Amino acid sequence: MHKKTYRFVLTTLALSLLALAAFSSADKNDTSRAAIQKVLGDQQVAWNHGDVTQFLQGYWHSPELTFSGTGGITRGWDEVLARYRKNYPNAAAMGELHFSDLEVRFLAGDSALVLGKWRLARKKDEIGGVFTLVWQKFPEGWRIIHDHTSLSAAKP
Amino acid sequence: MHKKTYRFVLTTLALSLLALAAFSSADKNDTSRAAIQKVLGDQQVAWNHGDVTQFLQGYWHSPELTFSGTGGITRGWDEVLARYRKNYPNAAAMGELHFSDLEVRFLAGDSALVLGKWRLARKKDEIGGVFTLVWQKFPEGWRIIHDHTSLSAAKP
Repeated sequence: MHKKTYRFVLTTLALSLLALAAFSSADKNDTSRAAIQKVLGDQQVAWNHGDVTQFLQGYWHSPELTFSGTGGITRGWDEVLARYRKNYPNAAAMGELHFSDLEVRFLAGDSALVLGKWRLARKKDEIGGVFTLVWQKFPEGWRIIHDHTSLSAAKP
Repeated sequence: MHKKTYRFVLTTLALSLLALAAFSSADKNDTSRAAIQKVLGDQQVAWNHGDVTQFLQGYWHSPELTFSGTGGITRGWDEVLARYRKNYPNAAAMGELHFSDLEVRFLAGDSALVLGKWRLARKKDEIGGVFTLVWQKFPEGWRIIHDHTSLSAAKP
């Protein structure tokens, strides 16, 4: 092959490989982002049906799951469920949950950081704030391994 | 070599390699944990000297740095600095900062999740709460890329 042609073929091949790598990485992130958004969407639906146990399916089912909030740090899936049950004992207390301004940032490997806002519209009041979720991908899918949820100073 | 001897040598070699890998991973995590704890220790010292700019050195110097709190989400190193300056304008407002119950969890690659408690002893009051820090290792060292700090409902 002519030296110039050879160089051209090599360059084209290298650029194609690079494009393919960039594309599959973007593709993988798109799939993961969609999977995470689906878990959060399912959580909203479960909450708005008054099903706290179903809502909890988005969390890592482990004693190492952590939840930070105004009450300090809660450890373990069972304990986080108990905390939700205690703070939101009925449909009136649960109200209607709405997540917004979701921002998914991928960390190295199969970890992600998700920032967002939450709002709870209830008959007696409307509360809301921001949350920080750390996610990890497990064989069963993306799950929240740490949740830090806080209340806004002012009404959202 | 005798077949049994051969198998023994191979097994020993494999086990040694595994042990070495486990050791160097634990070793790497120990070094990283110490580095993260040092950044937090330096932050406490800087704060207690009234030096907010020095305190901010623990954060990723980027417009992508995020800080979630009762006021919502603040974006960018300059904006986080401005927020601290506004909320803690002088030594009396800054008080004495103390971090405790630090828990460092390594995520994949060079990322880490740190949970902990903070307490601010001031002349007029004592406030405190929990924080969630997401860290990433940069060429210049471990830096906080996201901070979610919240106030406890009750006095800590």
